[in-house]
Amino acid sequence: MIQLSLIGIGTGNPDHITLQGIKAMNAADLILVPLKGEDKADLAGLRLQICRACVTNPATRIETFDLPTRDAATPDYLARVTDWHDTIALRWEAAIRAHLAQGGGPQVALLVWGDPSLYDSSLRIAERVSQRLPLALTVIPGITAIQMLCAAHAIPLNDLAAPVTITTGRALRDHGWPVGATTVVVMLDAGGAFATIDPAGVTIWWGAYVGMAEQVLRAGPLAEIGPEILTLRANARAAHGWIMDIYLMRKTA
Amino acid sequence: MIQLSLIGIGTGNPDHITLQGIKAMNAADLILVPLKGEDKADLAGLRLQICRACVTNPATRIETFDLPTRDAATPDYLARVTDWHDTIALRWEAAIRAHLAQGGGPQVALLVWGDPSLYDSSLRIAERVSQRLPLALTVIPGITAIQMLCAAHAIPLNDLAAPVTITTGRALRDHGWPVGATTVVVMLDAGGAFATIDPAGVTIWWGAYVGMAEQVLRAGPLAEIGPEILTLRANARAAHGWIMDIYLMRKTA
Repeated sequence: MIQLSLIGIGTGNPDHITLQGIKAMNAADLILVPLKGEDKADLAGLRLQICRACVTNPATRIETFDLPTRDAATPDYLARVTDWHDTIALRWEAAIRAHLAQGGGPQVALLVWGDPSLYDSSLRIAERVSQRLPLALTVIPGITAIQMLCAAHAIPLNDLAAPVTITTGRALRDHGWPVGATTVVVMLDAGGAFATIDPAGVTIWWGAYVGMAEQVLRAGPLAEIGPEILTLRANARAAHGWIMDIYLMRKTA
Repeated sequence: MIQLSLIGIGTGNPDHITLQGIKAMNAADLILVPLKGEDKADLAGLRLQICRACVTNPATRIETFDLPTRDAATPDYLARVTDWHDTIALRWEAAIRAHLAQGGGPQVALLVWGDPSLYDSSLRIAERVSQRLPLALTVIPGITAIQMLCAAHAIPLNDLAAPVTITTGRALRDHGWPVGATTVVVMLDAGGAFATIDPAGVTIWWGAYVGMAEQVLRAGPLAEIGPEILTLRANARAAHGWIMDIYLMRKTA
């Protein structure tokens, strides 16, 4: 039976790692580190750096594997993502089988940006792998970009005793401001979905590369700073070759 | 200028602490640990235990202070909470002034359950204190009960690319199932708000004392296991003298 640990490692600050995460890494016989292609080389490098900083057990092997890209030819978004998860599951399976074939032990760990529960595919991929290999799963939470955004701006996520909606850039574009929501957090925005909503009465707290050395933050009335954020975002993306950003918006009644 | 760090410490598992949290604790001249009254003595004890496990700097002082209780005579919920925050701010201020009067240094830390951004009053209290003492604020995120609930059940928070609503027991009782939501996380439920909604098509993942040794988990169709959870909750509360629980509900289309 493979013991698979999905370890949340936070958003790029190596100090986000929890003691639980460090213990799980050092209990692993194999740590799998996905490489996402050249444009995200910084991130793969950060993952390896976190591994090397935390792993003191000489018996723990650290192996990278290439992450496939999504097939742009599949027109439907959910189908494209589902196919992609199938392909990644095969890579995990191959890497684990290769490790076992070399006499490797059954403790396998995978490092996940942020937390494995939030807009991350690892749990869905593990589910697929478990249909082909006997697998016992452990999840170790990590600091998410939402938490890091709020911490960096020193703001609460929620208004006092009030609800919060977490959504995606795609959903905001397609469906507009969530019905009845006063606080909305937007993740996975390919760029500027906030520009598609009515900015009246909306304050935005935006961050890119939150928790990393490159962190950029802006906050203010959406109508005023929305255009500046779009420019900042485009420039940062051009400079780094990739961007991860997130924002919280609140509507005043 | 007082440097105040609000440090998220997770939900009771001492291994939830991040390296960033440990560094901030050891950089502090004073760590303030609130005591919440006898029924939550376990929690104050856990906070002190985490402090003692993490603090290796002999110059760091750890001080407890009594947290006031909310005035049940104030009929309006939000007014009651706001008054309570005012009173706590005075306690923080008094503790910090006493520390400074004894020649203590300006680095002050406060340990917060979970994360300071999520249904926690520390940021609002720090805002009040900053009006009476010069204060620079740093927030250090910690693992929340939401993350721990998902990790314990090994489930994603969100359906694939879908939104999530985080709300309170009070809001669920008062307003019912949030309009348009498919995934709803309920926090701060004084007990069984899920019993007030139509359970048809709803699956619940429930946890009490998540992340602690006492952790109890149940998952299944709400219609089937709702009554069992109510009983479990009442028994656990009676046995421990207090309870913290949380649940995620998903509606299948």
